[in-house]
Amino acid sequence: MKELSKKLSTLLGPKGWVSPENCLPWQRDWLDQNGEVPLGVARITSTDEATEVLRLCCAEKVAIVPQGGNTGLVGAGVLGKPNGVIISLSRMNVISSPDYSGGTITVEAGVILESLHQSLKGTGLMFPMHLGSEGSAQIGGLIATNAGGSHAFRYGMMQDLVLGLEVVLADGTVWNGMRSVQKDNAGYQLRKLFCGSEGTLGIVTRAILKLSPEPKQHFTALLAVSDASGLVKLAARLRAEGGEFLTAMEFFSNVGLDIALTNIPELVFPLQSRTAFYLIVEASSGSTKVPLDVILAEVIDWGMSEGIIIDSALAMSSTQRAAFWRLREEQPEGQRQLGVQLKHDISVPPEQLVDFLNRANDECNKILKGVRINPFGHLGDGNVHYNLSPPIGQLDFFGLDSEFAIKLGRLATIMGGSFAAEHGIGRTKTFLADILRDPVERNMMMRIKKSLDDSNQLNPDVLVSS
Amino acid sequence: MKELSKKLSTLLGPKGWVSPENCLPWQRDWLDQNGEVPLGVARITSTDEATEVLRLCCAEKVAIVPQGGNTGLVGAGVLGKPNGVIISLSRMNVISSPDYSGGTITVEAGVILESLHQSLKGTGLMFPMHLGSEGSAQIGGLIATNAGGSHAFRYGMMQDLVLGLEVVLADGTVWNGMRSVQKDNAGYQLRKLFCGSEGTLGIVTRAILKLSPEPKQHFTALLAVSDASGLVKLAARLRAEGGEFLTAMEFFSNVGLDIALTNIPELVFPLQSRTAFYLIVEASSGSTKVPLDVILAEVIDWGMSEGIIIDSALAMSSTQRAAFWRLREEQPEGQRQLGVQLKHDISVPPEQLVDFLNRANDECNKILKGVRINPFGHLGDGNVHYNLSPPIGQLDFFGLDSEFAIKLGRLATIMGGSFAAEHGIGRTKTFLADILRDPVERNMMMRIKKSLDDSNQLNPDVLVSS
Repeated sequence: MKELSKKLSTLLGPKGWVSPENCLPWQRDWLDQNGEVPLGVARITSTDEATEVLRLCCAEKVAIVPQGGNTGLVGAGVLGKPNGVIISLSRMNVISSPDYSGGTITVEAGVILESLHQSLKGTGLMFPMHLGSEGSAQIGGLIATNAGGSHAFRYGMMQDLVLGLEVVLADGTVWNGMRSVQKDNAGYQLRKLFCGSEGTLGIVTRAILKLSPEPKQHFTALLAVSDASGLVKLAARLRAEGGEFLTAMEFFSNVGLDIALTNIPELVFPLQSRTAFYLIVEASSGSTKVPLDVILAEVIDWGMSEGIIIDSALAMSSTQRAAFWRLREEQPEGQRQLGVQLKHDISVPPEQLVDFLNRANDECNKILKGVRINPFGHLGDGNVHYNLSPPIGQLDFFGLDSEFAIKLGRLATIMGGSFAAEHGIGRTKTFLADILRDPVERNMMMRIKKSLDDSNQLNPDVLVSS
Repeated sequence: MKELSKKLSTLLGPKGWVSPENCLPWQRDWLDQNGEVPLGVARITSTDEATEVLRLCCAEKVAIVPQGGNTGLVGAGVLGKPNGVIISLSRMNVISSPDYSGGTITVEAGVILESLHQSLKGTGLMFPMHLGSEGSAQIGGLIATNAGGSHAFRYGMMQDLVLGLEVVLADGTVWNGMRSVQKDNAGYQLRKLFCGSEGTLGIVTRAILKLSPEPKQHFTALLAVSDASGLVKLAARLRAEGGEFLTAMEFFSNVGLDIALTNIPELVFPLQSRTAFYLIVEASSGSTKVPLDVILAEVIDWGMSEGIIIDSALAMSSTQRAAFWRLREEQPEGQRQLGVQLKHDISVPPEQLVDFLNRANDECNKILKGVRINPFGHLGDGNVHYNLSPPIGQLDFFGLDSEFAIKLGRLATIMGGSFAAEHGIGRTKTFLADILRDPVERNMMMRIKKSLDDSNQLNPDVLVSS
């Protein structure tokens, strides 16, 4: 071990090798729930260094955990057992200039999503992925977790936005899949397989991403909605009338609003009415000739006349638009500040949302009376972050964590949905996957894992437990 | 062998088991270039029958080739060696009623694409995949080949449209991945891996597909374009101004137009001018309030004033629209009727199309002077079907087939594109893949193949040669 540490230190230099006593910024995850002490952190600056680190660790059978912005919620970017090596990609952060006519861009894995957004400002192009953690989340991590976010139902998840990849495999071999085309059927879709593989099959070092034309106009409204059933009816109407412009339909609850307003004092809620749910509707178009305001106003008028929409505000400036979005995006932070919580990352077919919420609320109240239920998320693709805080005045969940997770996950599964919609399985949900996942599926995953990482070197016990 | 044939005949009955002497409709591929005599064709009607057939064949180490509509162009749906079993999915053709609010539909693998289109008429929903062979191509085959077609650059390829899958694995085990949500990160993206796996990892029996709202208006124009460089400039302008409405940009050449008009007498060409290239531009919107005609007319006016567009016609009816499309879609049939041909299924980053065409034309003329070059395809995603007919008066390519394929494939590869854009590798392009594909990539594919089909039972020597 000492020998390996010395070799890595020599290879990477003082900036590149962080010894255990200085590891804290990388050791624990964002929720401070996971992360054992590593042998060290390898802050690589090149693909070649990744190869060398993997070869050295491989020879010593030391586990390797790749880490991006460390914003994951399932413990996949930190160690499950002490003495593995964390490979941090954050120093590989070069953004090439975009290919304008092709609409693509080449980036290194450590590029922060927000930096990518910034770098594209004024180019007429954009990378259409948005999520709460975009100020820290890195491209490599977003690929490894197949991130979704709030615009996924229009633009797709990470797997839909990755054209080319460079990946260092377990034995240090480099796969150069840096192609720039959507249509590439020259064999298995390896680029898709790495999306969502949570660092268990290889370490993504570079990517070619698909860009979209920057919209020339936006329409953003914040709506107070009667109830869950109103949300679903409104979403159906928006899909039918909002056509190809609809970019986001993000909801949060009155419970979540209260939590956020209490814990994040600078938040401002601009509506007069308080209702069960709130919806941010955003539409955008690449043409200035589309009467977005007319099209959306008609749907809002319809919602008002049906008693579905109780109150509404339209964003009149980009500042106001950002303020609306913050109400939704600070939901996780608000709840984190409240204290202990249970996160459940569910998806159900969108039309089953009401049924899911009703049944889930019943189940949760049966398990623990008075538990505070805070569902928020992405109405467009049925992705609910169904989070729980303990009943008022209580400080924990009395060891009922797994019972909640299993009940809610099973409910999603029987509805044709997923118990791990966009956060992944990581370390913390393999027990859940073992219970809820078809054994055939689990077996296929184990076989694929083994085929590319025979000695179980890369992120062991993540995604599928051995 | 006789024993197996008897068992399969008993299992499947007289309609379900076709003996070799009656196999002709399944034995040869569409181009009549591939297909050895099978032991028989298993025309299964259920997933259970697929399981039984696989178990029986597995026990006897008999190769299995799944077949859909048999419209593939790379020999993946027919036998490479005699005495394997073809599993035809065409009798598994049940279409469930769509899930309206969720925008999904469950289909069996043998459903013909056109039947699916028909079944959705009047529902307000559509399945957004279109290609020339849609009257015969089946969903299972479209999944196995990760089909693209003419609308892929807006709506995606098959991998972007498949939410859930049921697959029978090599040993007869059934993987039930029939989920209905876009966001499902509960492990590796197996549903994506099967898209484009060409029947080598399992046999797709059912799928849940993502539908889109049926557009409420279309705009279709046929344009005569000065040259390749004009095509690319026009495409860039259309992307920038046509925004999210742009549905197809399909091009064909004057060479191809002549071939099609000569060989398919009922085709009508409505323009006065003949130019090097023609482009079908289609835009569509889910809202009636978008002034598609104004938006597109402005781009066409710009093209005219720049001397890029020489002549144009707008479709004034759905009949006219269909007539425009036929000019493009009959390109393969026209050339097939002309006689022997070489097909190359290339993709390059769209902005490199001119460079590709120039260099490819030079290369081809060096290899065989006077060779007739007929490029057509999908301008939106840079997918060129770069097809060759022999010089006028000559009947073959003098054994130069591989030389053409290697030169053109290499050109695409060094430009960041693909030598197998949407037709796949199949049997006929594994030699090309072995030359052009990174050995690391080939090795990964072999390992994945082995992990799910250890005894190499499913479509052996397809996609990656053993």
